[in-house]
Amino acid sequence: MDISVLQKVRYGYTPKIPSILEGEIADILVEFGQPTEAIADRDALKEIFKRSYGKPVAVFGRGRNEAIGRELKVGVILSGGQAPGGHNVIAGLFDGLKKGNPSSKLYGFLGGPGGLVDNKAVELTAGKIEPYRNTGGFDIIGSGRTKIETPQQFAASLQTAKKLMLDALVIIGGDDSNTNAALLAEYFLERGASIQVIGCPKTIDGDLKNEHIETSFGFDTACKTFSELIGNIQRDANSAKKYWHFIRLMGRAASHIALECALQTRPNMCVISEEVEEKEISLTQLVEDICNSVVKRADNRENFGVILIPEGLVEFIPEMKKLISELNDVMAAKEDEFSKITSFAGQLRWLSRKISPVSYKLLETLPPQIAGQLLLDRDPHGNVMVSRIDTEKLLMGMVESRLARLKEEGIYKGKFSPLGHFFGYEGRCAFPTNFDADYCYSLGYSAFVLIASGLTGYIASVKNLAAPASEWIAGGVPLTMMMNMEQRHGSKKPVIKKALVDLEGGPFKAFDAARDTWAVKTMFHYPGAIQYFGPAEVCDQPTKTLKLELEQ
Amino acid sequence: MDISVLQKVRYGYTPKIPSILEGEIADILVEFGQPTEAIADRDALKEIFKRSYGKPVAVFGRGRNEAIGRELKVGVILSGGQAPGGHNVIAGLFDGLKKGNPSSKLYGFLGGPGGLVDNKAVELTAGKIEPYRNTGGFDIIGSGRTKIETPQQFAASLQTAKKLMLDALVIIGGDDSNTNAALLAEYFLERGASIQVIGCPKTIDGDLKNEHIETSFGFDTACKTFSELIGNIQRDANSAKKYWHFIRLMGRAASHIALECALQTRPNMCVISEEVEEKEISLTQLVEDICNSVVKRADNRENFGVILIPEGLVEFIPEMKKLISELNDVMAAKEDEFSKITSFAGQLRWLSRKISPVSYKLLETLPPQIAGQLLLDRDPHGNVMVSRIDTEKLLMGMVESRLARLKEEGIYKGKFSPLGHFFGYEGRCAFPTNFDADYCYSLGYSAFVLIASGLTGYIASVKNLAAPASEWIAGGVPLTMMMNMEQRHGSKKPVIKKALVDLEGGPFKAFDAARDTWAVKTMFHYPGAIQYFGPAEVCDQPTKTLKLELEQ
Repeated sequence: MDISVLQKVRYGYTPKIPSILEGEIADILVEFGQPTEAIADRDALKEIFKRSYGKPVAVFGRGRNEAIGRELKVGVILSGGQAPGGHNVIAGLFDGLKKGNPSSKLYGFLGGPGGLVDNKAVELTAGKIEPYRNTGGFDIIGSGRTKIETPQQFAASLQTAKKLMLDALVIIGGDDSNTNAALLAEYFLERGASIQVIGCPKTIDGDLKNEHIETSFGFDTACKTFSELIGNIQRDANSAKKYWHFIRLMGRAASHIALECALQTRPNMCVISEEVEEKEISLTQLVEDICNSVVKRADNRENFGVILIPEGLVEFIPEMKKLISELNDVMAAKEDEFSKITSFAGQLRWLSRKISPVSYKLLETLPPQIAGQLLLDRDPHGNVMVSRIDTEKLLMGMVESRLARLKEEGIYKGKFSPLGHFFGYEGRCAFPTNFDADYCYSLGYSAFVLIASGLTGYIASVKNLAAPASEWIAGGVPLTMMMNMEQRHGSKKPVIKKALVDLEGGPFKAFDAARDTWAVKTMFHYPGAIQYFGPAEVCDQPTKTLKLELEQ
Repeated sequence: MDISVLQKVRYGYTPKIPSILEGEIADILVEFGQPTEAIADRDALKEIFKRSYGKPVAVFGRGRNEAIGRELKVGVILSGGQAPGGHNVIAGLFDGLKKGNPSSKLYGFLGGPGGLVDNKAVELTAGKIEPYRNTGGFDIIGSGRTKIETPQQFAASLQTAKKLMLDALVIIGGDDSNTNAALLAEYFLERGASIQVIGCPKTIDGDLKNEHIETSFGFDTACKTFSELIGNIQRDANSAKKYWHFIRLMGRAASHIALECALQTRPNMCVISEEVEEKEISLTQLVEDICNSVVKRADNRENFGVILIPEGLVEFIPEMKKLISELNDVMAAKEDEFSKITSFAGQLRWLSRKISPVSYKLLETLPPQIAGQLLLDRDPHGNVMVSRIDTEKLLMGMVESRLARLKEEGIYKGKFSPLGHFFGYEGRCAFPTNFDADYCYSLGYSAFVLIASGLTGYIASVKNLAAPASEWIAGGVPLTMMMNMEQRHGSKKPVIKKALVDLEGGPFKAFDAARDTWAVKTMFHYPGAIQYFGPAEVCDQPTKTLKLELEQ
């Protein structure tokens, strides 16, 4: 195999794991706590998860566990968007499985949950896994976004599992995929099939976390990759001294990525969607806030800067939210009529009679490119594709217009040259940091111990992550414990509650305490590229978010 | 100073240097070759560079050199776009200067050549330089694009140099800045001022190279930063299996960056502008070539891929070149008239009577966003700002249209979801690789030895760069040796000849031999982030371009 030098060298890395996972595998025994409850809507959830609701939290301890050595067949699925470290979850799971019993087998389903439904699987052997250790990507078996929802899909999944004579299934995914894991676990129990289902917390967005899941894997690597780029751009801005960079960052609804990157790089501004929603900050106000920083820095002759913008922002700005929702409604109802109008001006005229005057006025004032994205880029349900909206360009355009007025008024005396960026795909498949490599391997290994201990409907949990890996606490948490009921496509569904940025939390408070200074002064940090081989203080630090949350 | 951990640790790095530069500085003696000639237009150049033309190449050897210890005052300028390693050139220059005589002084001119004209300088002390060692950026003194052209600017430069009682000036810049260095050297000689001028070869674009300058500094780091990102995106493409990524790369006219990144990452396609020009490949043909790869990969059920596009491409496509030139002419002549037309449709109508039918037809078929960029984004001279044209979007749009037709014809059976990226600012200020850190420090140190040896109109030269640093050959090359005369703004000017990609050279040939396979099969390489501390095969490799060129 002809591969890059780093890739070759990374195979040699041995992930650091919790000391409980070291040594002989038959010496790991599961200790259970008290029965648990869901975070809300307990009765409804008990009804849905009749057989799997309310199990106790599991923690691994020392003790003889002969059952761990039985021969097992396990399937594994990579679900949803890529996150660095997925390959190490599989490697950890595989190594645990083979330590338990060398005859045990691991199957990988191809292309995500769809591979389970359609019975597309390959056996993952030692030789197959070897070249993927400590590497990024989900390319070992691919990923996919198929959601197992219909009765047919559930039945097909069971059929596949039975055909392969699986003892267990590991689903590596985000909140939705882990909700799916819980539903599958319950379904298998209901059908009397002894197929266990275990989840693993994956997502670069960082929004799958709670008391027991301190962070989802991939968040560390993605944030550090983006922070490398932001730092480089900041250093460029501070050298050329003539550009304002507006950098939009992937991360869906939550602003965890933007916040972590801000803590790592200290930009002049970082918009936090959760704050915009909480304080009902209007688009006009947001533009005004940015202009304030630009004007003050221009007074110090610093006509450059960097602003971070979370991908999901537009949905949190009150008037944009209203406009998008009105557009979605109109399009859903009258898409045929709308699609016949070919000119942009004609579309605007048509809409002027269909949406509220306030929303129409907003639509008119948006830069044409953005208005076009709102009208043209729609998903198959007619919904605006929010992630496709170039929010950075929206803000660049509006700030530019506002500054022109402030210049006329003599308030602004600088020169404004904005440049836009979007970072996302660059970070989802980076080589995992040592942290993510260690964490993922530990998660995979823990998933095996949960399986070997006969548990189902659990998510692998590795805690105390700000400490050295040897002190990490491994175990599992019942998935129902993280759930509540939420409205989805017109009906109440059980879902794992998404963790948004907590405005009372340590990370936001640390940012809030510093941001007024950063807005005016140049306090940029330049983290540089992720390092795998250097001193521990460079290579083995978790995110600032994790540290600040655990220190609280 | 509150700085990132990597930054702290990088201060501790000791650049590797040629063995001739090790040991006592007074033991370095300059050895001269034969007088040299310019690459063309020798008579004209002799006329312009009466006093500095045709000096011999200088190579450092062993020998007692007491003159090296005289007390000196030296000024240094960072000129033009940032390139990783600039701070190390200054550090090497400073260390040489202080080794020669601890009383010598180094001044940094602020904000580029403009700092010399306006006499804005700061003394660069050991304490000031320390925190910038082995870091990216030009922020120690800033950079700028002012060109010293007018008699007033030359006079002001001389005045500043006299005021500061400078013995020498070091200009760190690209081809234009080094041409400027040669002109300043000649000007100072003509005025009888004993101020020496030495250049250093800087540019991430890699287009300042020749027999004596094997590579410009920064090219290594920038290409490796871009290759990290391209590799990550490729791994993402190969995991999600649903996107075609069109990645435009900075690099001005030359395609060296795109070519090096292609050699490092093995994308499905990489357009080389120099080939497009040489073979007169039309836009239609280019789109057809891309579609060929997309169609063939779709036949293999691989509806994803990565295409690299050099920033300067549009200027090399024959019909685009013609269109841009016609637009520039019309706008230069009738800008007032054009600017009064407010609607895009009206502008098109107006242009239909002003440019050739062929060019007008092309303009009409371009995606509206691109046509808009051609008409709106213009520099103060009315010229189209080629670097602002989203060539990746132009190609994405045209490929999408063409594939729709191929689908109707039953030739294409896949699904095409394109995503665009532009990388440039991310790489200009990255922490320099060990190679660039070593090379830059050696260049700066060599610049000092050239100064201490009384030379002027030279550029620092460090050769044999594919070998370990101890075997590098240090010296200097007369700037006039790299020059010819070229048409600029209506008259013949002396310029350093830009090195474009050589279609007969090793790097292009290596690419050409592999590209047909890459176009269809997934042969992606994932280089990962730049490493500073690991094994030498990961941390100390020069670019593939450099190796292939030197192996020829």
